[in-house]
Amino acid sequence: MKKMRILLLGAGGVGTYFCGRLANGGAEVAVVARSDYEVASRSGYRIHSIAGDFEFHPAAVLKSASEYEGIPDYVIVATKVLPDLDLHELLRDAVRSRESTIVLIQNGIDIEREVAAAFPENELLSTIAYIGVSRPAPGEVLHQGAGNLKMGVYPAGISEKARRLADAFGDGGVKCELCEDIRYVRWYKLLWNLPFNPVSVLAGRVDTHRMTVDPGLEKLCRELMDEVILVANACGVALTQQGAEETMEFTRQFPAYKSSMLQDFEAGRPLEVEAILGNPVRLAHQYGIPVPRMEVCYALLKSVNSQKQQEAEK
Amino acid sequence: MKKMRILLLGAGGVGTYFCGRLANGGAEVAVVARSDYEVASRSGYRIHSIAGDFEFHPAAVLKSASEYEGIPDYVIVATKVLPDLDLHELLRDAVRSRESTIVLIQNGIDIEREVAAAFPENELLSTIAYIGVSRPAPGEVLHQGAGNLKMGVYPAGISEKARRLADAFGDGGVKCELCEDIRYVRWYKLLWNLPFNPVSVLAGRVDTHRMTVDPGLEKLCRELMDEVILVANACGVALTQQGAEETMEFTRQFPAYKSSMLQDFEAGRPLEVEAILGNPVRLAHQYGIPVPRMEVCYALLKSVNSQKQQEAEK
Repeated sequence: MKKMRILLLGAGGVGTYFCGRLANGGAEVAVVARSDYEVASRSGYRIHSIAGDFEFHPAAVLKSASEYEGIPDYVIVATKVLPDLDLHELLRDAVRSRESTIVLIQNGIDIEREVAAAFPENELLSTIAYIGVSRPAPGEVLHQGAGNLKMGVYPAGISEKARRLADAFGDGGVKCELCEDIRYVRWYKLLWNLPFNPVSVLAGRVDTHRMTVDPGLEKLCRELMDEVILVANACGVALTQQGAEETMEFTRQFPAYKSSMLQDFEAGRPLEVEAILGNPVRLAHQYGIPVPRMEVCYALLKSVNSQKQQEAEK
Repeated sequence: MKKMRILLLGAGGVGTYFCGRLANGGAEVAVVARSDYEVASRSGYRIHSIAGDFEFHPAAVLKSASEYEGIPDYVIVATKVLPDLDLHELLRDAVRSRESTIVLIQNGIDIEREVAAAFPENELLSTIAYIGVSRPAPGEVLHQGAGNLKMGVYPAGISEKARRLADAFGDGGVKCELCEDIRYVRWYKLLWNLPFNPVSVLAGRVDTHRMTVDPGLEKLCRELMDEVILVANACGVALTQQGAEETMEFTRQFPAYKSSMLQDFEAGRPLEVEAILGNPVRLAHQYGIPVPRMEVCYALLKSVNSQKQQEAEK
C-alpha cells in the first residue's frame, strides 16, 4: 500500500509532536522548517514526551513548500494564528492539486473561512489540539500534557479523508476523535480560551487557580463565557450554559497552571489576540450581539500585545 | 491677628507642596510625618517647583497627631486613598474639637462619606488638587505641573471657613477656587481619572497620547466616560456628554505623559483602585446602573494591584 504523504507547515511544538506521531505510524512526513532548519535537516527532532521519548526524522526538511516533490495527501498547518502570517501565501506553494486535503491544527474561532475561500476545491479539515507542548530549543520538543485531537470537515461533517487521517494518527498513538460538528467543538473550547487566556495576562499574570478563586476574576470569566454563548448561538452553534459550568468546574479541578497565552507573554512571543478575541468580537458585531466585556479585554490585550512587541524590538 | 493653625496628615508630595505654600502665606503649619520624619524634623522640606524653588520649615514635625498642642483650625488630610489606611483612626487624635475643620485633599469618588459620618459636628471641606508633583527622596518634593485647588463644603455649599482657607492659599500663591457643588467637580474629574488612570496600567503601560490615538483604547476610554455619566446622573450629579468631549479634547491637546496611577504602578506603590473604580462601581450597583466596562477594569486592576503588592513583598 502506498504510504500516506504529509507536508507540515509550521514546525513548532504542536506540529512537530503530532507529525512525529504520524511518522511513527508509518506516514511519510516532510517538514517546512524555519528557525529549526539547520538542526532539523541534520538530525531531526528529539521529542521528550510524558508518553515516552522518541525521535522524529522527517522524510524531507525543506526551506519552503515549493521544494516539495509530488503531491501531498495532506497539508497540515500548525502555525500560530498571527496577523503577520499570510496563510494564503504559505499554502499557495504547498497546495497544487485538489487531491491535497488541507488540515488546520490551530486555535481560535473563524480561522478556516479565508482558507476555505482561497482553496474552494480542496477539502478542509478543521482540527483542535489538546496538548501541553513547548519547544525549549531548536530541534527539541517538550510534551508535558494531554496530546489528543478533535477533527471534522469544515464547515461540518466527517469524510473518508478525515477517517483516513484519524486512523493514521491512531496508528501513531494519537487519539483523534472525529466530530460531525467541529464548529461546536471550537466554540466549546473558546469557553475556556476566551476568558482564561486573556485574563491570565491582563490581571497581572495570574494562574488558572487564581482566576477561579478571586471573586472578581471568577465573575469576569463567567461573564465572558456568557458572552461567548450569546455569540455562538447567534452563529447557529448550540452552546449552552452547561458548557460554561463544565469548563469552570474543569478549570477548578485542574492543578494551577499558566495559560499558553501567559507563557507566550512572559517569553515575549506575540499573542493570538485575533483568533481568540478579535474574531468573536467581529462576529458579535456582525450579528448585533452586545459584548462589552469581550470588547474591553480585546482593546486592552491588543494594546498589551503591541506594547510588548515594541519593547521586544528595542 | 492670630495665625491660622494647620495640621497636615499625609505629608506626601501633594500635602507638603500645598501646606508649604500655606506656610509661605503666613499660616502656622504642623506636619505628621512618617517615612520623612528624620529628615523633615532636622531640616524641613525642599520644594523644587516650576514656580520657583522654596523651603518649607513646619512649625512642628510630629510622629503622631496626639503630640499636637492645642486645637488646629484646619486638619488637612492629603494621604492616598488606600484600603489599609484607617482614616478614622488617623483623624481621631487630630480632631479634638468641633472648631477644627477637616479638609480632604484626595482623589476619587465618595471618599468623604465615612469621615462625615465619623465627625458629624465638624465642617468638612472636600478639595481636589490639580497638580503634577512627586517626592523623589525624603524631604524632597518635585513640583512639575499645574498646582491649583478646587474646594467646597461637603456635601455642597461654600462656608466662611472655606473662604478663609481659600484666602490663606491665595496668600501663599495657590489658586483655590471655591465651588458650590464640589460633588459635580469631583465627578467631572472622574471623567479623566476613571478611564485614563486604569487603562494606562491595564493596556500595557501606555501614555495619554497613546490612549487618544489607539482606536480601541480611545473607544474604551469614551465608553468608560459614558458609564461615569450614567452613574453620576443616578447620583443626582448633572454631568453631561459635553464634559466627556472636553476631557477627551483636553487630553488630546496635552503633551503625552504617564498617568499618576501608571507612575505609582511602575514605582511599585499601591494603586488607588477603590477611590477611582471601586466606589463608582458600588454606586452603580446601588442604583442599578449597568457598568460592564467599569466592572471589567475594576476586577482586572484590583488583581494587578494585589499581584504587584505581593511581588513587592517577596
